[in-house]
Amino acid sequence: MIAIVGFGQMGASLAAAWRPRGIRIVAIDLRPDVRREALERGWADVASDRLESCAEADAVLLAVPVRTCIGILPEVASTMSPGALLLDVASTKGAVLEAWRSCGSRSPYVSLHPLAGNEGAGIASASPSLFRDAPCLVLPVEASGAVVGEAEDLVRTAGARPIRIESAAKHDSAVAVTIHLPHALAYALTQVARESGTDLSLAGRSFRDSTRVALSDVTMVRDFLLTNGEATAAAIDRLIAQLGRLRESLTSGDEDSLSRLMEESKEIRRAL
Amino acid sequence: MIAIVGFGQMGASLAAAWRPRGIRIVAIDLRPDVRREALERGWADVASDRLESCAEADAVLLAVPVRTCIGILPEVASTMSPGALLLDVASTKGAVLEAWRSCGSRSPYVSLHPLAGNEGAGIASASPSLFRDAPCLVLPVEASGAVVGEAEDLVRTAGARPIRIESAAKHDSAVAVTIHLPHALAYALTQVARESGTDLSLAGRSFRDSTRVALSDVTMVRDFLLTNGEATAAAIDRLIAQLGRLRESLTSGDEDSLSRLMEESKEIRRAL
Repeated sequence: MIAIVGFGQMGASLAAAWRPRGIRIVAIDLRPDVRREALERGWADVASDRLESCAEADAVLLAVPVRTCIGILPEVASTMSPGALLLDVASTKGAVLEAWRSCGSRSPYVSLHPLAGNEGAGIASASPSLFRDAPCLVLPVEASGAVVGEAEDLVRTAGARPIRIESAAKHDSAVAVTIHLPHALAYALTQVARESGTDLSLAGRSFRDSTRVALSDVTMVRDFLLTNGEATAAAIDRLIAQLGRLRESLTSGDEDSLSRLMEESKEIRRAL
Repeated sequence: MIAIVGFGQMGASLAAAWRPRGIRIVAIDLRPDVRREALERGWADVASDRLESCAEADAVLLAVPVRTCIGILPEVASTMSPGALLLDVASTKGAVLEAWRSCGSRSPYVSLHPLAGNEGAGIASASPSLFRDAPCLVLPVEASGAVVGEAEDLVRTAGARPIRIESAAKHDSAVAVTIHLPHALAYALTQVARESGTDLSLAGRSFRDSTRVALSDVTMVRDFLLTNGEATAAAIDRLIAQLGRLRESLTSGDEDSLSRLMEESKEIRRAL
Protein backbone atom coordinates (compact mmCIF):
# COMPACT_ATOMS: atom_id res chain seq x y z
CA MET A 1 0.00 0.00 0.00
CA ILE A 2 1.33 3.41 -0.99
CA ALA A 3 0.21 6.61 0.72
CA ILE A 4 0.34 9.54 -1.68
CA VAL A 5 0.46 12.91 0.02
CA GLY A 6 -0.89 15.53 -2.34
CA PHE A 7 -3.31 14.31 -4.97
CA GLY A 8 -2.53 16.91 -7.64
CA GLN A 9 -1.45 16.26 -11.23
CA MET A 10 1.65 14.25 -10.20
CA GLY A 11 0.28 12.32 -7.26
CA ALA A 12 -3.05 11.48 -8.87
CA SER A 13 -1.40 10.45 -12.16
CA LEU A 14 0.96 8.07 -10.35
CA ALA A 15 -2.00 6.61 -8.46
CA ALA A 16 -3.92 6.24 -11.71
CA ALA A 17 -0.99 4.36 -13.27
CA TRP A 18 -0.27 2.20 -10.21
CA ARG A 19 -3.68 1.17 -8.98
CA PRO A 20 -4.72 -0.88 -12.06
CA ARG A 21 -1.44 -2.79 -11.54
CA GLY A 22 -2.61 -4.02 -8.15
CA ILE A 23 -1.04 -1.40 -5.89
CA ARG A 24 -3.36 -0.16 -3.15
CA ILE A 25 -3.43 3.62 -2.74
CA VAL A 26 -4.19 5.92 0.17
CA ALA A 27 -4.89 9.44 -1.09
CA ILE A 28 -3.98 12.10 1.45
CA ASP A 29 -5.14 15.59 0.59
CA LEU A 30 -6.61 18.48 2.54
CA ARG A 31 -9.22 19.28 -0.15
CA PRO A 32 -12.49 17.34 0.33
CA ASP A 33 -13.41 17.62 -3.37
CA VAL A 34 -10.04 16.13 -4.37
CA ARG A 35 -10.47 13.22 -1.95
CA ARG A 36 -13.96 12.60 -3.29
CA GLU A 37 -12.73 12.68 -6.89
CA ALA A 38 -9.81 10.33 -6.07
CA LEU A 39 -12.31 7.74 -4.84
CA GLU A 40 -14.86 8.36 -7.60
CA ARG A 41 -12.23 7.91 -10.31
CA GLY A 42 -11.13 4.68 -8.66
CA TRP A 43 -7.58 5.97 -8.22
CA ALA A 44 -7.53 5.46 -4.43
CA ASP A 45 -8.77 2.78 -2.05
CA VAL A 46 -8.88 5.12 0.90
CA ALA A 47 -8.87 8.91 1.14
CA SER A 48 -7.81 10.92 4.15
CA ASP A 49 -7.05 14.48 5.19
CA ARG A 50 -4.54 13.45 7.86
CA LEU A 51 -0.83 12.71 7.61
CA GLU A 52 -1.36 10.03 10.29
CA SER A 53 -2.86 7.93 7.49
CA CYS A 54 0.74 7.36 6.30
CA ALA A 55 1.27 5.08 9.32
CA GLU A 56 0.16 1.83 7.73
CA ALA A 57 1.63 2.31 4.26
CA ASP A 58 4.57 0.28 2.90
CA ALA A 59 5.66 3.41 1.06
CA VAL A 60 4.86 7.09 1.36
CA LEU A 61 5.14 9.36 -1.66
CA LEU A 62 5.25 13.12 -1.15
CA ALA A 63 3.74 14.85 -4.19
CA VAL A 64 3.26 18.39 -2.94
CA PRO A 65 5.08 21.63 -3.90
CA VAL A 66 8.69 21.70 -2.61
CA ARG A 67 8.18 24.02 0.32
CA THR A 68 5.09 22.14 1.50
CA CYS A 69 7.15 18.98 1.19
CA ILE A 70 9.83 20.47 3.44
CA GLY A 71 7.17 21.63 5.89
CA ILE A 72 5.49 18.25 6.34
CA LEU A 73 8.63 16.05 6.30
CA PRO A 74 9.10 15.96 10.11
CA GLU A 75 5.53 14.84 10.74
CA VAL A 76 5.61 12.31 7.91
CA ALA A 77 8.95 10.92 9.11
CA SER A 78 7.69 10.50 12.66
CA THR A 79 4.46 8.88 11.47
CA MET A 80 5.78 6.33 8.96
CA SER A 81 6.06 2.75 10.06
CA PRO A 82 9.66 1.53 10.53
CA GLY A 83 11.13 0.22 7.31
CA ALA A 84 8.52 1.84 5.08
CA LEU A 85 9.96 3.49 1.96
CA LEU A 86 9.94 7.26 1.65
CA LEU A 87 9.62 8.71 -1.85
CA ASP A 88 9.13 12.23 -3.12
CA VAL A 89 8.71 13.87 -6.52
CA ALA A 90 10.05 17.26 -5.42
CA SER A 91 11.34 19.55 -8.19
CA THR A 92 14.46 20.52 -6.22
CA LYS A 93 16.47 18.15 -4.06
CA GLY A 94 19.04 20.01 -1.93
CA ALA A 95 16.55 21.77 0.33
CA VAL A 96 14.37 18.66 0.69
CA LEU A 97 17.31 16.43 1.64
CA GLU A 98 18.50 18.99 4.15
CA ALA A 99 15.07 19.03 5.78
CA TRP A 100 15.01 15.24 5.79
CA ARG A 101 18.43 15.01 7.45
CA SER A 102 17.50 17.45 10.16
CA CYS A 103 14.39 15.48 11.11
CA GLY A 104 16.49 12.41 11.91
CA SER A 105 14.44 9.97 9.83
CA ARG A 106 15.75 6.40 9.48
CA SER A 107 13.41 5.37 6.65
CA PRO A 108 14.86 4.12 3.42
CA TYR A 109 14.48 7.08 1.06
CA VAL A 110 14.65 7.43 -2.72
CA SER A 111 13.97 10.84 -4.20
CA LEU A 112 12.34 10.94 -7.65
CA HIS A 113 11.81 13.61 -10.28
CA PRO A 114 9.62 12.59 -13.21
CA LEU A 115 10.34 14.88 -16.17
CA ALA A 116 6.70 14.91 -17.10
CA GLY A 117 3.64 16.97 -16.46
CA ASN A 118 1.91 19.72 -18.29
CA GLU A 119 0.58 23.20 -17.66
CA GLY A 120 -2.63 21.87 -16.16
CA ALA A 121 -2.94 21.61 -12.40
CA GLY A 122 -4.73 19.35 -9.97
CA ILE A 123 -6.44 16.02 -10.25
CA ALA A 124 -8.55 17.30 -13.16
CA SER A 125 -5.38 17.34 -15.30
CA ALA A 126 -4.11 13.95 -14.07
CA SER A 127 -3.87 10.93 -16.33
CA PRO A 128 -2.57 7.35 -16.02
CA SER A 129 -0.48 7.99 -19.16
CA LEU A 130 1.21 11.19 -17.93
CA PHE A 131 4.51 9.38 -17.32
CA ARG A 132 4.49 7.14 -20.37
CA ASP A 133 8.03 7.03 -21.81
CA ALA A 134 9.04 10.04 -19.69
CA PRO A 135 12.46 10.05 -18.05
CA CYS A 136 12.29 9.92 -14.26
CA LEU A 137 15.37 10.97 -12.29
CA VAL A 138 16.15 8.62 -9.42
CA LEU A 139 18.32 9.87 -6.54
CA PRO A 140 19.04 7.22 -3.89
CA VAL A 141 19.33 9.05 -0.56
CA GLU A 142 19.22 6.31 2.08
CA ALA A 143 18.72 3.09 0.24
CA SER A 144 20.25 -0.36 -0.34
CA GLY A 145 20.49 -1.66 -3.88
CA ALA A 146 17.31 -3.65 -3.30
CA VAL A 147 15.42 -0.56 -2.16
CA VAL A 148 16.58 1.45 -5.17
CA GLY A 149 15.47 -1.46 -7.36
CA GLU A 150 12.05 -1.36 -5.71
CA ALA A 151 11.75 2.39 -6.37
CA GLU A 152 12.83 1.90 -10.00
CA ASP A 153 10.23 -0.81 -10.42
CA LEU A 154 7.58 1.62 -9.23
CA VAL A 155 8.85 4.17 -11.77
CA ARG A 156 8.63 1.58 -14.56
CA THR A 157 5.18 0.47 -13.43
CA ALA A 158 4.06 4.09 -13.91
CA GLY A 159 5.38 3.89 -17.49
CA ALA A 160 8.50 6.05 -16.98
CA ARG A 161 12.19 5.35 -17.60
CA PRO A 162 14.37 5.57 -14.47
CA ILE A 163 17.61 7.56 -14.88
CA ARG A 164 19.97 7.33 -11.91
CA ILE A 165 21.36 10.64 -10.71
CA GLU A 166 24.34 10.90 -8.40
CA SER A 167 23.70 13.84 -6.11
CA ALA A 168 21.22 16.50 -5.12
CA ALA A 169 23.76 19.17 -6.11
CA LYS A 170 24.11 17.73 -9.60
CA HIS A 171 20.33 17.50 -9.91
CA ASP A 172 19.72 21.05 -8.78
CA SER A 173 22.37 22.67 -10.97
CA ALA A 174 21.17 20.69 -14.02
CA VAL A 175 17.48 21.49 -13.58
CA ALA A 176 18.37 25.14 -12.94
CA VAL A 177 19.36 25.17 -16.65
CA THR A 178 16.97 22.61 -18.15
CA ILE A 179 13.79 23.49 -16.23
CA HIS A 180 14.04 26.54 -14.00
CA LEU A 181 15.69 28.80 -16.57
CA PRO A 182 13.05 28.02 -19.27
CA HIS A 183 10.38 28.94 -16.71
CA ALA A 184 12.15 32.20 -15.82
CA LEU A 185 12.40 32.96 -19.55
CA ALA A 186 8.71 32.31 -20.11
CA TYR A 187 7.81 34.89 -17.46
CA ALA A 188 10.37 37.41 -18.69
CA LEU A 189 9.30 37.01 -22.34
CA THR A 190 5.63 37.45 -21.44
CA GLN A 191 6.50 40.58 -19.48
CA VAL A 192 8.50 42.01 -22.40
CA ALA A 193 5.44 41.56 -24.62
CA ARG A 194 3.31 43.35 -22.01
CA GLU A 195 5.61 46.30 -21.36
CA SER A 196 6.34 46.86 -25.06
CA GLY A 197 2.61 46.81 -25.83
CA THR A 198 3.17 44.12 -28.45
CA ASP A 199 0.06 42.91 -30.23
CA LEU A 200 0.07 39.20 -29.35
CA SER A 201 -2.23 38.34 -32.22
CA LEU A 202 1.10 38.58 -34.09
CA ALA A 203 2.56 35.74 -32.03
CA GLY A 204 3.39 32.51 -33.78
CA ARG A 205 4.40 29.10 -32.53
CA SER A 206 7.83 30.20 -31.30
CA PHE A 207 6.33 32.65 -28.80
CA ARG A 208 3.65 30.16 -27.76
CA ASP A 209 6.16 27.38 -27.17
CA SER A 210 8.61 29.61 -25.32
CA THR A 211 5.93 30.96 -22.96
CA ARG A 212 3.84 27.81 -22.49
CA VAL A 213 5.22 27.09 -19.02
CA ALA A 214 4.06 30.53 -17.82
CA LEU A 215 0.70 28.67 -17.62
CA SER A 216 2.08 26.32 -14.97
CA ASP A 217 0.80 26.15 -11.42
CA VAL A 218 2.21 29.23 -9.69
CA THR A 219 2.78 27.63 -6.27
CA MET A 220 4.70 24.72 -7.76
CA VAL A 221 6.97 26.96 -9.84
CA ARG A 222 7.48 29.59 -7.14
CA ASP A 223 8.53 26.83 -4.75
CA PHE A 224 11.10 25.30 -7.06
CA LEU A 225 12.51 28.67 -8.07
CA LEU A 226 12.82 29.85 -4.45
CA THR A 227 14.40 26.59 -3.23
CA ASN A 228 16.92 26.66 -6.08
CA GLY A 229 17.43 30.41 -6.17
CA GLU A 230 21.21 30.43 -6.21
CA ALA A 231 21.64 27.97 -9.09
CA THR A 232 18.81 29.60 -11.04
CA ALA A 233 20.35 33.04 -10.54
CA ALA A 234 23.68 31.69 -11.81
CA ALA A 235 21.88 30.25 -14.88
CA ILE A 236 20.18 33.62 -15.45
CA ASP A 237 23.61 35.32 -15.30
CA ARG A 238 24.96 32.95 -17.92
CA LEU A 239 21.94 33.56 -20.11
CA ILE A 240 22.26 37.34 -19.84
CA ALA A 241 25.92 37.04 -20.88
CA GLN A 242 24.97 34.89 -23.89
CA LEU A 243 22.25 37.34 -24.91
CA GLY A 244 24.77 40.16 -24.64
CA ARG A 245 27.10 38.33 -27.05
CA LEU A 246 24.27 37.68 -29.49
CA ARG A 247 23.16 41.32 -29.24
CA GLU A 248 26.69 42.44 -30.02
CA SER A 249 26.84 40.23 -33.13
CA LEU A 250 23.50 41.67 -34.25
CA THR A 251 24.30 45.34 -33.81
CA SER A 252 27.79 45.05 -35.28
CA GLY A 253 26.46 42.88 -38.13
CA ASP A 254 29.05 40.22 -37.32
CA GLU A 255 27.62 37.60 -39.59
CA ASP A 256 30.36 35.03 -39.10
CA SER A 257 30.12 34.82 -35.34
CA LEU A 258 26.33 34.84 -35.56
CA SER A 259 26.37 31.95 -38.06
CA ARG A 260 28.82 29.97 -35.93
CA LEU A 261 26.66 30.43 -32.84
CA MET A 262 23.54 29.38 -34.71
CA GLU A 263 25.11 26.32 -36.34
CA GLU A 264 26.56 25.20 -33.02
CA SER A 265 23.25 25.67 -31.21
CA LYS A 266 21.47 23.73 -33.92
CA GLU A 267 23.87 20.81 -33.48
CA ILE A 268 23.40 20.80 -29.70
CA ARG A 269 19.62 20.93 -30.03
CA ARG A 270 19.64 18.23 -32.69
CA ALA A 271 21.53 15.87 -30.36
CA LEU A 272 18.80 16.22 -27.73
CA MET B 1 -0.26 32.01 -63.18
CA ILE B 2 1.92 32.65 -60.11
CA ALA B 3 5.70 32.55 -60.27
CA ILE B 4 7.15 31.45 -56.93
CA VAL B 5 10.77 32.42 -56.46
CA GLY B 6 12.37 30.06 -53.95
CA PHE B 7 10.76 26.65 -53.65
CA GLY B 8 11.66 25.99 -50.00
CA GLN B 9 9.26 25.12 -47.18
CA MET B 10 7.20 28.31 -47.63
CA GLY B 11 7.14 28.60 -51.40
CA ALA B 12 6.56 24.91 -52.06
CA SER B 13 3.81 24.70 -49.42
CA LEU B 14 1.96 27.64 -50.95
CA ALA B 15 2.28 26.03 -54.38
CA ALA B 16 1.03 22.73 -52.95
CA ALA B 17 -2.02 24.48 -51.49
CA TRP B 18 -2.74 26.62 -54.55
CA ARG B 19 -2.22 24.29 -57.47
CA PRO B 20 -5.08 21.85 -56.66
CA ARG B 21 -7.33 24.95 -56.60
CA GLY B 22 -6.61 25.64 -60.24
CA ILE B 23 -3.77 28.13 -59.93
CA ARG B 24 -0.93 27.51 -62.35
CA ILE B 25 2.54 27.65 -60.78
CA VAL B 26 6.01 28.48 -62.13
CA ALA B 27 8.65 27.23 -59.71
CA ILE B 28 11.83 29.30 -59.85
CA ASP B 29 14.76 27.86 -57.95
CA LEU B 30 18.49 27.58 -58.59
CA ARG B 31 18.68 23.98 -57.32
CA PRO B 32 18.03 21.39 -60.07
CA ASP B 33 16.89 18.73 -57.55
CA VAL B 34 14.33 21.14 -56.10
CA ARG B 35 12.97 21.99 -59.57
CA ARG B 36 12.73 18.27 -60.38
CA GLU B 37 10.91 17.55 -57.13
CA ALA B 38 8.52 20.47 -57.66
CA LEU B 39 7.45 18.93 -60.97
CA GLU B 40 7.42 15.35 -59.70
CA ARG B 41 5.18 16.25 -56.76
CA GLY B 42 2.87 18.03 -59.15
CA TRP B 43 3.24 21.33 -57.31
CA ALA B 44 4.45 23.26 -60.35
CA ASP B 45 3.48 23.39 -64.04
CA VAL B 46 6.82 24.78 -65.10
CA ALA B 47 10.19 24.90 -63.36
CA SER B 48 12.97 27.34 -64.13
CA ASP B 49 16.30 28.53 -62.78
CA ARG B 50 15.92 32.04 -64.23
CA LEU B 51 14.25 35.13 -62.80
CA GLU B 52 13.23 36.03 -66.36
CA SER B 53 10.58 33.33 -65.98
CA CYS B 54 8.66 35.82 -63.83
CA ALA B 55 7.87 37.79 -66.98
CA GLU B 56 4.65 36.03 -67.93
CA ALA B 57 3.19 35.55 -64.47
CA ASP B 58 0.10 37.39 -63.20
CA ALA B 59 1.70 37.43 -59.79
CA VAL B 60 5.23 36.89 -58.49
CA LEU B 61 5.79 35.61 -54.96
CA LEU B 62 9.23 35.98 -53.39
CA ALA B 63 9.77 33.14 -50.90
CA VAL B 64 13.51 33.34 -50.26
CA PRO B 65 15.42 34.44 -47.12
CA VAL B 66 15.13 38.21 -46.48
CA ARG B 67 18.54 39.26 -47.72
CA THR B 68 18.21 37.17 -50.88
CA CYS B 69 14.81 38.80 -51.37
CA ILE B 70 16.40 42.25 -51.13
CA GLY B 71 19.15 41.18 -53.52
CA ILE B 72 16.84 39.95 -56.30
CA LEU B 73 14.15 42.65 -56.02
CA PRO B 74 15.60 44.97 -58.71
CA GLU B 75 15.83 42.19 -61.28
CA VAL B 76 12.38 40.83 -60.42
CA ALA B 77 10.86 44.32 -60.57
CA SER B 78 12.36 45.02 -63.97
CA THR B 79 11.26 41.61 -65.31
CA MET B 80 7.66 41.50 -64.15
CA SER B 81 4.96 42.31 -66.67
CA PRO B 82 3.20 45.65 -66.08
CA GLY B 83 0.30 45.29 -63.67
CA ALA B 84 1.39 41.91 -62.32
CA LEU B 85 1.08 41.60 -58.53
CA LEU B 86 4.21 41.42 -56.40
CA LEU B 87 4.01 39.38 -53.19
CA ASP B 88 6.64 38.32 -50.68
CA VAL B 89 6.67 36.27 -47.50
CA ALA B 90 9.72 37.97 -46.02
CA SER B 91 10.16 37.71 -42.25
CA THR B 92 11.07 41.39 -41.88
CA LYS B 93 9.46 44.22 -43.81
CA GLY B 94 11.33 47.51 -43.34
CA ALA B 95 14.47 46.49 -45.22
CA VAL B 96 12.50 44.79 -48.02
CA LEU B 97 10.24 47.78 -48.57
CA GLU B 98 13.24 50.10 -48.65
CA ALA B 99 14.85 47.95 -51.33
CA TRP B 100 11.61 47.88 -53.28
CA ARG B 101 11.26 51.68 -53.14
CA SER B 102 14.79 52.24 -54.34
CA CYS B 103 14.27 50.02 -57.38
CA GLY B 104 11.43 52.25 -58.61
CA SER B 105 8.96 49.43 -59.21
CA ARG B 106 5.41 50.38 -60.20
CA SER B 107 3.87 46.95 -59.59
CA PRO B 108 1.02 46.57 -57.18
CA TYR B 109 2.63 45.07 -54.10
CA VAL B 110 1.25 43.31 -51.01
CA SER B 111 3.71 41.97 -48.47
CA LEU B 112 2.71 38.82 -46.56
CA HIS B 113 4.02 37.06 -43.49
CA PRO B 114 2.40 33.68 -42.76
CA LEU B 115 2.92 32.83 -39.07
CA ALA B 116 3.46 29.23 -39.95
CA GLY B 117 6.30 26.92 -40.72
CA ASN B 118 8.32 24.47 -38.72
CA GLU B 119 11.95 23.65 -38.00
CA GLY B 120 12.26 21.64 -41.19
CA ALA B 121 13.76 23.25 -44.26
CA GLY B 122 13.31 22.93 -47.99
CA ILE B 123 10.75 21.31 -50.22
CA ALA B 124 11.13 18.03 -48.29
CA SER B 125 9.42 19.69 -45.31
CA ALA B 126 6.71 21.40 -47.38
CA SER B 127 3.06 20.48 -47.11
CA PRO B 128 -0.22 21.75 -48.59
CA SER B 129 -1.57 21.97 -45.02
CA LEU B 130 1.30 24.05 -43.58
CA PHE B 131 -0.84 27.19 -43.54
CA ARG B 132 -4.08 25.65 -42.39
CA ASP B 133 -5.71 27.98 -39.82
CA ALA B 134 -2.45 29.91 -39.46
CA PRO B 135 -2.59 33.70 -39.20
CA CYS B 136 -1.02 35.46 -42.17
CA LEU B 137 -0.04 39.11 -41.76
CA VAL B 138 -1.02 41.24 -44.76
CA LEU B 139 0.75 44.56 -45.34
CA PRO B 140 -0.55 46.52 -48.35
CA VAL B 141 2.40 48.44 -49.78
CA GLU B 142 1.22 49.65 -53.19
CA ALA B 143 -2.25 48.30 -53.66
CA SER B 144 -5.85 49.32 -54.30
CA GLY B 145 -8.58 47.74 -52.21
CA ALA B 146 -9.25 45.29 -55.04
CA VAL B 147 -5.61 44.23 -55.15
CA VAL B 148 -5.47 43.73 -51.37
CA GLY B 149 -8.64 41.65 -51.67
CA GLU B 150 -6.98 39.54 -54.35
CA ALA B 151 -3.95 38.95 -52.09
CA GLU B 152 -6.22 38.07 -49.16
CA ASP B 153 -8.10 35.60 -51.33
CA LEU B 154 -4.80 33.90 -52.15
CA VAL B 155 -4.03 33.73 -48.42
CA ARG B 156 -7.42 32.14 -47.74
CA THR B 157 -7.01 29.72 -50.62
CA ALA B 158 -3.82 28.51 -48.93
CA GLY B 159 -5.88 27.86 -45.79
CA ALA B 160 -4.57 30.79 -43.73
CA ARG B 161 -6.39 33.68 -42.02
CA PRO B 162 -5.39 37.15 -43.30
CA ILE B 163 -4.70 39.75 -40.58
CA ARG B 164 -4.20 43.29 -41.89
CA ILE B 165 -1.16 45.09 -40.50
CA GLU B 166 -0.71 48.83 -40.82
CA SER B 167 2.99 49.44 -41.31
CA ALA B 168 6.37 47.80 -41.78
CA ALA B 169 7.58 49.49 -38.60
CA LYS B 170 4.73 48.03 -36.56
CA HIS B 171 5.37 44.61 -38.09
CA ASP B 172 9.07 44.65 -37.41
CA SER B 173 8.84 45.84 -33.81
CA ALA B 174 6.10 43.28 -33.05
CA VAL B 175 7.93 40.31 -34.59
CA ALA B 176 11.13 41.39 -32.82
CA VAL B 177 9.29 40.40 -29.62
CA THR B 178 7.04 37.58 -30.83
CA ILE B 179 9.44 35.79 -33.20
CA HIS B 180 12.98 37.15 -33.23
CA LEU B 181 13.40 37.27 -29.44
CA PRO B 182 12.22 33.63 -28.97
CA HIS B 183 14.80 32.62 -31.59
CA ALA B 184 17.56 34.59 -29.83
CA LEU B 185 16.53 32.93 -26.55
CA ALA B 186 16.66 29.46 -28.07
CA TYR B 187 20.26 30.02 -29.15
CA ALA B 188 21.26 31.62 -25.83
CA LEU B 189 19.61 28.85 -23.78
CA THR B 190 21.30 26.14 -25.83
CA GLN B 191 24.65 27.88 -25.34
CA VAL B 192 24.09 28.14 -21.57
CA ALA B 193 23.53 24.37 -21.47
CA ARG B 194 26.75 23.85 -23.44
CA GLU B 195 29.00 26.16 -21.44
CA SER B 196 27.68 24.93 -18.08
CA GLY B 197 28.26 21.31 -19.14
CA THR B 198 24.64 20.48 -18.32
CA ASP B 199 23.61 16.90 -18.95
CA LEU B 200 20.80 17.34 -21.47
CA SER B 201 19.39 13.90 -20.76
CA LEU B 202 17.95 15.82 -17.80
CA ALA B 203 16.02 18.12 -20.12
CA GLY B 204 12.25 17.95 -20.07
CA ARG B 205 9.58 19.44 -22.28
CA SER B 206 10.19 23.04 -21.17
CA PHE B 207 13.78 23.01 -22.45
CA ARG B 208 12.78 21.23 -25.65
CA ASP B 209 9.99 23.68 -26.39
CA SER B 210 12.09 26.74 -25.58
CA THR B 211 14.96 25.62 -27.83
CA ARG B 212 12.97 24.05 -30.69
CA VAL B 213 13.51 26.99 -33.03
CA ALA B 214 17.30 26.58 -32.70
CA LEU B 215 16.65 23.79 -35.25
CA SER B 216 15.41 26.30 -37.83
CA ASP B 217 17.14 26.99 -41.09
CA VAL B 218 20.20 29.09 -40.23
CA THR B 219 20.15 31.30 -43.32
CA MET B 220 16.51 32.20 -42.86
CA VAL B 221 16.95 33.12 -39.18
CA ARG B 222 20.28 34.92 -39.66
CA ASP B 223 18.67 37.03 -42.37
CA PHE B 224 15.69 38.08 -40.30
CA LEU B 225 17.81 38.80 -37.24
CA LEU B 226 20.30 40.90 -39.21
CA THR B 227 17.63 42.86 -41.08
CA ASN B 228 15.80 43.60 -37.83
CA GLY B 229 18.86 44.00 -35.63
CA GLU B 230 17.90 47.25 -33.95
CA ALA B 231 14.40 46.17 -32.86
CA THR B 232 15.68 42.74 -31.82
CA ALA B 233 18.49 44.33 -29.79
CA ALA B 234 15.91 46.56 -28.06
CA ALA B 235 13.80 43.48 -27.29
CA ILE B 236 16.89 41.73 -25.90
CA ASP B 237 17.55 44.75 -23.66
CA ARG B 238 14.02 44.60 -22.31
CA LEU B 239 14.37 40.89 -21.69
CA ILE B 240 17.66 41.31 -19.85
CA ALA B 241 16.02 43.94 -17.62
CA GLN B 242 13.10 41.60 -16.88
CA LEU B 243 15.47 38.74 -16.08
CA GLY B 244 17.38 41.05 -13.74
CA ARG B 245 14.17 41.84 -11.86
CA LEU B 246 13.26 38.18 -11.61
CA ARG B 247 16.78 37.35 -10.43
CA GLU B 248 16.52 40.01 -7.73
CA SER B 249 13.21 38.55 -6.47
CA LEU B 250 14.83 35.11 -6.36
CA THR B 251 17.99 36.02 -4.53
CA SER B 252 16.22 38.30 -2.05
CA GLY B 253 13.45 35.71 -1.58
CA ASP B 254 10.84 38.36 -2.41
CA GLU B 255 7.96 35.96 -2.63
CA ASP B 256 5.24 38.58 -3.10
CA SER B 257 6.75 40.27 -6.12
CA LEU B 258 7.64 36.88 -7.60
CA SER B 259 4.06 35.66 -7.17
CA ARG B 260 2.63 38.83 -8.70
CA LEU B 261 4.94 38.54 -11.70
CA MET B 262 4.02 34.90 -12.21
CA GLU B 263 0.26 35.43 -11.84
CA GLU B 264 0.35 38.36 -14.25
CA SER B 265 2.40 36.42 -16.81
CA LYS B 266 0.00 33.50 -16.55
CA GLU B 267 -2.94 35.80 -17.30
CA ILE B 268 -1.20 37.31 -20.33
CA ARG B 269 -0.26 33.89 -21.67
CA ARG B 270 -3.75 32.55 -21.05
CA ALA B 271 -5.25 35.34 -23.14
CA LEU B 272 -3.12 34.32 -26.12
